[in-house]
Amino acid sequence: MIGGVTPIDLRSDTVTRPDEEMRRAMASAEVGDDVLDHDPTMAALEERIAALLGVEAALWVPSGSMGNLIALFLHLRRGDRFLAPLGAHVLDAELGTAAWLAGGMPHGLPVLSPEAVVAAAGGESPYYGLRTTLLCLENTHNASGGTVTTPDEHALLVSAARSAGLAVHLDGARLWNASVALGVPPSELTTGADTVQVCLSKGLGAPVGSVVAGSSSFVVEARRVRKMLGGGVRQGGVLAAAGLVALDRIDRLAEDHANARVLAGGLRSLGWDVPEPATNIVLATVPDVEKTLVSLRELGVFASPMSGKVRFVTHGDVDSSGIAELLRRLREDA
Amino acid sequence: MIGGVTPIDLRSDTVTRPDEEMRRAMASAEVGDDVLDHDPTMAALEERIAALLGVEAALWVPSGSMGNLIALFLHLRRGDRFLAPLGAHVLDAELGTAAWLAGGMPHGLPVLSPEAVVAAAGGESPYYGLRTTLLCLENTHNASGGTVTTPDEHALLVSAARSAGLAVHLDGARLWNASVALGVPPSELTTGADTVQVCLSKGLGAPVGSVVAGSSSFVVEARRVRKMLGGGVRQGGVLAAAGLVALDRIDRLAEDHANARVLAGGLRSLGWDVPEPATNIVLATVPDVEKTLVSLRELGVFASPMSGKVRFVTHGDVDSSGIAELLRRLREDA
Amino acid sequence: MIGGVTPIDLRSDTVTRPDEEMRRAMASAEVGDDVLDHDPTMAALEERIAALLGVEAALWVPSGSMGNLIALFLHLRRGDRFLAPLGAHVLDAELGTAAWLAGGMPHGLPVLSPEAVVAAAGGESPYYGLRTTLLCLENTHNASGGTVTTPDEHALLVSAARSAGLAVHLDGARLWNASVALGVPPSELTTGADTVQVCLSKGLGAPVGSVVAGSSSFVVEARRVRKMLGGGVRQGGVLAAAGLVALDRIDRLAEDHANARVLAGGLRSLGWDVPEPATNIVLATVPDVEKTLVSLRELGVFASPMSGKVRFVTHGDVDSSGIAELLRRLREDA
Amino acid sequence: MIGGVTPIDLRSDTVTRPDEEMRRAMASAEVGDDVLDHDPTMAALEERIAALLGVEAALWVPSGSMGNLIALFLHLRRGDRFLAPLGAHVLDAELGTAAWLAGGMPHGLPVLSPEAVVAAAGGESPYYGLRTTLLCLENTHNASGGTVTTPDEHALLVSAARSAGLAVHLDGARLWNASVALGVPPSELTTGADTVQVCLSKGLGAPVGSVVAGSSSFVVEARRVRKMLGGGVRQGGVLAAAGLVALDRIDRLAEDHANARVLAGGLRSLGWDVPEPATNIVLATVPDVEKTLVSLRELGVFASPMSGKVRFVTHGDVDSSGIAELLRRLREDA
Repeated sequence: MIGGVTPIDLRSDTVTRPDEEMRRAMASAEVGDDVLDHDPTMAALEERIAALLGVEAALWVPSGSMGNLIALFLHLRRGDRFLAPLGAHVLDAELGTAAWLAGGMPHGLPVLSPEAVVAAAGGESPYYGLRTTLLCLENTHNASGGTVTTPDEHALLVSAARSAGLAVHLDGARLWNASVALGVPPSELTTGADTVQVCLSKGLGAPVGSVVAGSSSFVVEARRVRKMLGGGVRQGGVLAAAGLVALDRIDRLAEDHANARVLAGGLRSLGWDVPEPATNIVLATVPDVEKTLVSLRELGVFASPMSGKVRFVTHGDVDSSGIAELLRRLREDA
Repeated sequence: MIGGVTPIDLRSDTVTRPDEEMRRAMASAEVGDDVLDHDPTMAALEERIAALLGVEAALWVPSGSMGNLIALFLHLRRGDRFLAPLGAHVLDAELGTAAWLAGGMPHGLPVLSPEAVVAAAGGESPYYGLRTTLLCLENTHNASGGTVTTPDEHALLVSAARSAGLAVHLDGARLWNASVALGVPPSELTTGADTVQVCLSKGLGAPVGSVVAGSSSFVVEARRVRKMLGGGVRQGGVLAAAGLVALDRIDRLAEDHANARVLAGGLRSLGWDVPEPATNIVLATVPDVEKTLVSLRELGVFASPMSGKVRFVTHGDVDSSGIAELLRRLREDA
Repeated sequence: MIGGVTPIDLRSDTVTRPDEEMRRAMASAEVGDDVLDHDPTMAALEERIAALLGVEAALWVPSGSMGNLIALFLHLRRGDRFLAPLGAHVLDAELGTAAWLAGGMPHGLPVLSPEAVVAAAGGESPYYGLRTTLLCLENTHNASGGTVTTPDEHALLVSAARSAGLAVHLDGARLWNASVALGVPPSELTTGADTVQVCLSKGLGAPVGSVVAGSSSFVVEARRVRKMLGGGVRQGGVLAAAGLVALDRIDRLAEDHANARVLAGGLRSLGWDVPEPATNIVLATVPDVEKTLVSLRELGVFASPMSGKVRFVTHGDVDSSGIAELLRRLREDA
Repeated sequence: MIGGVTPIDLRSDTVTRPDEEMRRAMASAEVGDDVLDHDPTMAALEERIAALLGVEAALWVPSGSMGNLIALFLHLRRGDRFLAPLGAHVLDAELGTAAWLAGGMPHGLPVLSPEAVVAAAGGESPYYGLRTTLLCLENTHNASGGTVTTPDEHALLVSAARSAGLAVHLDGARLWNASVALGVPPSELTTGADTVQVCLSKGLGAPVGSVVAGSSSFVVEARRVRKMLGGGVRQGGVLAAAGLVALDRIDRLAEDHANARVLAGGLRSLGWDVPEPATNIVLATVPDVEKTLVSLRELGVFASPMSGKVRFVTHGDVDSSGIAELLRRLREDA
């Protein structure tokens, strides 16, 4: 409780805490030394996710940032240019590692379309010698409000990338949300991508961890790079056990999406400028972001700034009654 | 002669060849070992340029790319974000070194204005921790057709950068052209910039070399980084001697600007879509860049692709009669 | 069981599995989002370790490799030379990240002494401009068999480094072992070091995690770099809880040391060439390392190659009866 | 003249100044834009050196440091370990770029022998995953006093490297000296090396430039990396012309070697501890290097510190009478 009211924290779905079932799974996990040779629970998690994504192999990493970084590091030679939609996590939220560490020259696309991909890939003068070699996709797309790329749109983007000679990495930190929102299995949203990153610690509620996936040979190299970056962990099975529980809860994300729609509707009824959310992210356009965040905090409501707007992210630790309470506080304050 | 016609090469002002006076200066230059300790002609060139630019010190480098790279390397910590206008040479024409080697995360500005600088500098969520620390200017701006930033515009941009806590690097590869076009000394176009790069081998006609300049302490460090990159040269005085001659020829750039205006007018009279050039770069919008370049080549006229257009760069090796001849060939071909 | 015998795994003390008490602590840990703002159990762990090490602040990291990497990254400018004893983990076991990622030029010291530090720090010609700025210590020193640096020796090395203008990083992955072997608190072994890394997942038995520590301002920057590398974790409290339990077990390392001495004595009695171990590492000189490792494996005994020798590392998952059993198997096989 | 005496500068053979013939060649060189497309004199120089070295292709670079850097950059993936003899230029005299920029983890060999190469290449534990992929040779070897590797020794080292799966780069900054001292063509000293760097501005007397050479595909990539580093130059033919003259003077290095032997003999007759030089470098062991250098300077004699000794490098700007004068001054001062 803060100032007499229970905090309602919608800053991100990363704030979800592991529940009893996850904790029990962690406490009873079978473990090994995953750096030295093998942790059986890790291996089980990695196999299950590879199957879900329809790829050959997968590798646990401590964070989505590391998953993206490993993939970009392996896709890019030093100096290669890569394309990503403006606002992409790899551009704005990973402290420039795509550039200085992975070695890429970022080129942001104002509009993400097959035509834009082809144009940007071939846009540079051959004299200058810049090689464009990678397209980074992000589904759902955080900065534009959790929007969803459909299998058809995805296929066209991948096809455009291929025709331009680009590899494709998919930042699927919230791919589960896209899958649930569209009612298609995750594997239909990864078609043709060389590498994919998915997160266990956002809506799925695991305490720690993401997974980067692709071909078997990619994962062999990814394991090396993970070790380089210091991301190998010893008895990681305790975390993987929570991840396995989390994977049983993908369908639960539908509740977060329903709560987001309720939240958006409620905000609109209070006069806020809010589009209908596609998944679990509600982006409100307000005159003064910082001032709005402060006002919300005074009501015990926590949101975050994003793309010059106020972002609410629904998740499993705030259920429908929490959303109702949030709207009640706003109405009383109005 | 190619196919019976004398080539008219306007691909870039870098194609200019040293003339007899420069060659004599090179042949009689006093030299020392500039890596080991001191080359007197190098020192004279560096002092003269520092004075012209109104800064404390300067350092010869083999190319403008190296000059920009050294400045960015010293301005940026690994992961720092920097701002530059879309199309800037540091973004598109230096093979990504601003990112992977200097360590910066580039952020291109679609419009370069004081407001855009301030907004972009503060735009990221503090949570993500991306630090924006540098603004790169380019005067004249190559990709937009050799356009000129005036002292007042420059001062407002620098002031905006300062207010946002950014350092300022000026890519002045063609700063001499801006100076001549505006009728102001170069030092009025560098006010407030921490570092400046200027080129000797474009319109000024020296065979090799650029100079990066700034505070004395910057130049001490820049000398170290130049050595790192392998850009220190031994008896560089032979090249500096040509540079000193080149500096006597800044005023001659007015001829290139006049020729560019004649060329633009001539092209327009033939129905081409060409804006009035501010300096020595003529950018023509055509339906098919590659096809146009091929057609021009068949007439012995050489241009280059730039920003989705056809670029002609006037320079001292093609005088007004050369421009007239170029237009004559186009008229005959039409 | 492998081939009818229980495996005795002494490849490393990293293979230790969390026991029931640790698992219970993990299952009941209070957690928050440690990347977004605060995880209370993480904070408690970091405070307690800072106090133990006698420094201002500390930061959890997924691995000792990441702890060393963050420290080196922050100590070194790109191109700085650093000194470390030959065989140091940062030289041989971190995939070159000290060089390509942290930016340092490694210089291995065949003998680690105050005189060698001073000589190497000043050894280069000033003309070449190589700056030597850091000394990396390692206590205990893995590659030489878990040998211990005393507080006096440590103080002399730090003093030599200071006199030569070097910062000091201490790789204390097994500092707890040194502390127990010498009977001095860990803080007496960190005196004067700028940064220290200690590990929770080796002899102390936590499943995952190390800690890098130093001044408060260092830790602020270290947190940024951890995020860069993808080492920030969300509800990390589940791991920190295990770390807190592990810290209650430092004294237990005395058993590992006793077991190492028993093992060494037993091996010698069988004719092996084995020096008396200072801590928990037994290094045996054998004619053919690979062949010996294979023979051991056939007896269900697992060791590792190190410094051209065979390394046995004692730890809490193999108690004195396990060591006795190991020696029994060897005797029967002889 | 300094203090009434003519300076005798033997700090390095890099201090040689271009003579009249070279200057005339520079002044009359045919040139083009070597970055944009083609400089005919550059091309002629590169072809001639490729032929001399017995390789497919060659690329001019502003310095030997850049030549080595480009080769290492292309040989090494980030994190690869490479071997080089202790004291090698790539280890001590290139500001750590082999590590932070090329991406390699250096491993210095105290003794350079085929056995040492094989042992070091396979020395690391496979668990740690460090990949050793390159051997750097240096002929003549500067830090050990201009010593020479014979074709047979070279072949055995290359063969050992091959058997261990290593590529081979040869830093041949003074390969011409080795060739002349041994009386064999340079191509016999490059057998089996993947890449070679040779210098034009040391004993050969050109003002600026080195060349890096290897397969045609290597040179295509090297040209890209040269552009990245800012080492491409425009009308470089003015420098290449001097390089072509320099190549006519390889045989003249025999004079430098004779002068070195006279110098060494003279120093010994004055009681100095000086081994017989193999080429143009005389390394004197003295009680106090700095003090000796100061004493020499007072006599107008300039030497440099190297490997804890005093280094004299003979070259074309100090002929046999200069060496005699040097010895006369020392005798008078004794």
